[in-house]
Amino acid sequence: MDNLTEKVAELSKRRGFFFQSSEAYGGVAGFQTFGPEGAEVKRKIENSWRETFSRGLGHREIEAPTIMQEDVFKASGHLDGFDDMIIECPECGTSSRADHLIEDNTEVEEAESFSTDQVEALIKEHDLECPSCGDSLTDVEVEDFNLMFETSIGPGSGQTGYLRPETAQGIFVEFPRLKEYARNQLPFGITQIGKAYRNEISPRKGLVRVREFTQAELEHFIDPEEDEPDIERVADVELMLYPVGEQEKDDGEYVYATVEEAVEEDIVESEWVAYYLGIAKKWYKEIGVDMDRFRYRQHNEGERAHYATDCWDAEAEVDGDWIEITGFAYRGCYDLKKHDEYSQNDFTVFKEYDEPEVVEKKAVDADMGYLGPEFGDKAGEIKDKLEELARQKPEAFEADKVIVEVEDEEFSVPSEKANFSVEKTEEHGEQILPHVVEPSFGIGRIVYTVLAHAYDEEQVEDGERTVMHLSDRVAPTEVAVFPLMDKEGLGEKAREVADKLRSEGLSVKYDDTGNIGRRYRRQDEVGTPYCVTVDYETLEEEAETVTVRDRDSMDQKRVKIQDLAEHLK
Amino acid sequence: MDNLTEKVAELSKRRGFFFQSSEAYGGVAGFQTFGPEGAEVKRKIENSWRETFSRGLGHREIEAPTIMQEDVFKASGHLDGFDDMIIECPECGTSSRADHLIEDNTEVEEAESFSTDQVEALIKEHDLECPSCGDSLTDVEVEDFNLMFETSIGPGSGQTGYLRPETAQGIFVEFPRLKEYARNQLPFGITQIGKAYRNEISPRKGLVRVREFTQAELEHFIDPEEDEPDIERVADVELMLYPVGEQEKDDGEYVYATVEEAVEEDIVESEWVAYYLGIAKKWYKEIGVDMDRFRYRQHNEGERAHYATDCWDAEAEVDGDWIEITGFAYRGCYDLKKHDEYSQNDFTVFKEYDEPEVVEKKAVDADMGYLGPEFGDKAGEIKDKLEELARQKPEAFEADKVIVEVEDEEFSVPSEKANFSVEKTEEHGEQILPHVVEPSFGIGRIVYTVLAHAYDEEQVEDGERTVMHLSDRVAPTEVAVFPLMDKEGLGEKAREVADKLRSEGLSVKYDDTGNIGRRYRRQDEVGTPYCVTVDYETLEEEAETVTVRDRDSMDQKRVKIQDLAEHLK
Repeated sequence: MDNLTEKVAELSKRRGFFFQSSEAYGGVAGFQTFGPEGAEVKRKIENSWRETFSRGLGHREIEAPTIMQEDVFKASGHLDGFDDMIIECPECGTSSRADHLIEDNTEVEEAESFSTDQVEALIKEHDLECPSCGDSLTDVEVEDFNLMFETSIGPGSGQTGYLRPETAQGIFVEFPRLKEYARNQLPFGITQIGKAYRNEISPRKGLVRVREFTQAELEHFIDPEEDEPDIERVADVELMLYPVGEQEKDDGEYVYATVEEAVEEDIVESEWVAYYLGIAKKWYKEIGVDMDRFRYRQHNEGERAHYATDCWDAEAEVDGDWIEITGFAYRGCYDLKKHDEYSQNDFTVFKEYDEPEVVEKKAVDADMGYLGPEFGDKAGEIKDKLEELARQKPEAFEADKVIVEVEDEEFSVPSEKANFSVEKTEEHGEQILPHVVEPSFGIGRIVYTVLAHAYDEEQVEDGERTVMHLSDRVAPTEVAVFPLMDKEGLGEKAREVADKLRSEGLSVKYDDTGNIGRRYRRQDEVGTPYCVTVDYETLEEEAETVTVRDRDSMDQKRVKIQDLAEHLK
Repeated sequence: MDNLTEKVAELSKRRGFFFQSSEAYGGVAGFQTFGPEGAEVKRKIENSWRETFSRGLGHREIEAPTIMQEDVFKASGHLDGFDDMIIECPECGTSSRADHLIEDNTEVEEAESFSTDQVEALIKEHDLECPSCGDSLTDVEVEDFNLMFETSIGPGSGQTGYLRPETAQGIFVEFPRLKEYARNQLPFGITQIGKAYRNEISPRKGLVRVREFTQAELEHFIDPEEDEPDIERVADVELMLYPVGEQEKDDGEYVYATVEEAVEEDIVESEWVAYYLGIAKKWYKEIGVDMDRFRYRQHNEGERAHYATDCWDAEAEVDGDWIEITGFAYRGCYDLKKHDEYSQNDFTVFKEYDEPEVVEKKAVDADMGYLGPEFGDKAGEIKDKLEELARQKPEAFEADKVIVEVEDEEFSVPSEKANFSVEKTEEHGEQILPHVVEPSFGIGRIVYTVLAHAYDEEQVEDGERTVMHLSDRVAPTEVAVFPLMDKEGLGEKAREVADKLRSEGLSVKYDDTGNIGRRYRRQDEVGTPYCVTVDYETLEEEAETVTVRDRDSMDQKRVKIQDLAEHLK
């Protein structure tokens, strides 16, 4: 369908799915508000995610603040490395993303992976111009622009804080407490659904590139040497994969493989990543992502995040563009290691050996009563050297005398004065840094994909209808109830039916304004799967039947009120 | 119970309800993380709120961004007026809230309602000192400190944005679109659950005064002349009220009244506010707020927010402190009027008259061909005066000549040259500004209240137990399943029971570590209402019974596995 983006945007604004925020004040690019229908779709997708990725896998969810202190992002690498390349037109002052400028105006792809120098050279080579005023940008410097929103915490000059650029850091920094909660047993998974923020240089309209967005992230902490995913669970799930090798070919093709095959044939390097590709594929399908406009694409080396060792994106196609809706990354021990180094806390987990291991500990207990008088102010350093030697070259103590070198001078110490000994101790385990597997979902983009893939325009008897073929699992309203007209007891009966359906747990909308045809169109546009109409037949018959109209087929059939809830479920 | 605050904090940290964020980095005051158990309680409270205040009342929920542009807060009054009084010690640099300093060290109450000058005078009068270093603060200036977190949106110098200090503004600014969505029909209600931010000068430990928190707000837009709440629905709900009149007495007492009495006896001025006090009272009770530690307190004039005309707080008592957990405000048309004035958009709603009204429109169409030559450069002003006269004193045009005064000079105009006429037009309605009724809930404080009111220490046979008597509606886990030991098929059977209960929709925890007594204690501490134990009897009997242990009574009884889900529900 042509112009799907514009059509979805128009419908979303009119019907209350999503729209530019604060438009009464002109709005600011990159901020969108979910209206009543959109907020309901979003919530249903979040709840379904929670069921699938948190509760369903035995993981637990936490909720951390969105503002975090500077130290955290020094450690995580975001303060230094979370940049986009920016170029500012000296003539009109417009800022542009330098890599996008190249991609939009040359044959070059993935310019994000280049250095600022390379990007400057490409701009010069192609003589690129400011997209706003047309002035030449060939001699303009390309700079790094940090994408975090900064703020100040507390009064006075305060303390610098940032709005988190990913929810993940809120989980990582709490690892010392979370591991206690998990009683120090790997593996365990922690999830979080919450806001994250990126001060994009040029946000797009709609939900695809916004400055404030909702992430659903799962951090699965594993022992890389011991823990394996339950591949069996998803072995047969078919994946549509687009590995780097194929992307680099001129006639590159998708590789179709089951999760099991993808692992066995090493198409997906990490079996943990493959496992989650399988779990997620089933979920996307359930919530209504069109599998004919969906693929898993492997990251090439340049675009991979600073922490990731292997990374695949789930991508959905809308209007010819492939949108990243989820990133699956094997983050290794990058994050926990950094926080372990930068903070005053312990981010390791004690890993018990199957059997205690006997470790030989070599030590000396040098006789200072001898070393002192004998070597004077060198005695301390000689003692240190003896200890070093005990660890590195214990056999040296087998001779009568031990020779150590201090400041280019050799000293000879009788072995008996060194008191060399070997102690055997039992070690029950060691401290290890867990590795992290992370599926990271962009909820807003998934909402957008689901809406765009549900959108359709159809020729029907009395003209054209716009219909949202939303999955039952995400449709904001499950059933709409209409009286033919609000008179002669029809409205009363219809409200009664609506209340009855509500009490049976369905989400119901009552509508009695306008003609029936228009009410059907209204519900088609917000994706309500069923409409129920109370008419004169309902009142006349003893059996009390109503008309049930199916959104997709538009078929109508009469159902008894008493069987209605059952029929709809 | 003594030291309830510390006890709840200790348990919350140990068991994963809530704790200081980023403690590995020392943390920053005013930011708390909900651990797995606390996040679950919070989510359940939010869902229950949604059922009660949004879906249950036919309102709709939206989701707006947390970052909003400066213009919005210029209009809302937050940029100028959302301040606390701060005093900075010139000796040690510690910033304190000036009003708290007075309240903590003198007999003066509600110092927040005073001006900075009054506060300075009180500090001088009582010779107050810096709470940190003890230096005198008598000659130090008290300043206003704006509580909004500021940030910069976009590259370069950017555009100033603020983290919203209340979710409400995200609803108000979208009113032009929301009224369309409601087809311009009042009344309608819009809700939102989301983060709000206040850069508190001195946050407290725990969840009571934090810098980032979750609000659940309901903005009910009404026609103040037409719309009335469904008082019947809550007429009999009993309220414990603490009106301003009683607060001012030395021996002031609570007033016990039903919602109906509170309205009839004018204890609560706005019946809309009284209506929501009733709805909310029932809800607090359901989620486990202890009604013996609860009251509704009326705001006095000084503490009322800049927009509110009548305001009541729901307050809960913990450790002798009364904590505001909800504010109920009749905001009038304050917010919509401001946004209507400051923005380029229309925040009014067209109100149709029952019958069209005939309106007489008086006008003149002065003959400038006459006025011009006759009065020269005064002609324009004379024309304006004639128009004014037509509206204010139409009978003047009945005479042959009309006299108007311009700049102290009288001019006489022949009536025929004024072309006075009366046109009758039919008006079908008028544009009105809706009024707003707002219950605003602090979710974190409600979570805290529910935890603190559930906390208990009890003497039991084998010592003391800590138990959280959480309501079934908010307990993170509904049932825990234990095998007596994880051997001889007991573990297997217990896991089977756990899976069966999960499939019946219960939230279940499986635990097989430690002795049974310790496992009971663990579940008591996270408030799990039921523990189910699989023992040898389970395996031996044909009927397959398990032990069900009740958290509160600690009674145990045997129930058949097949009846278990039914029994627990």
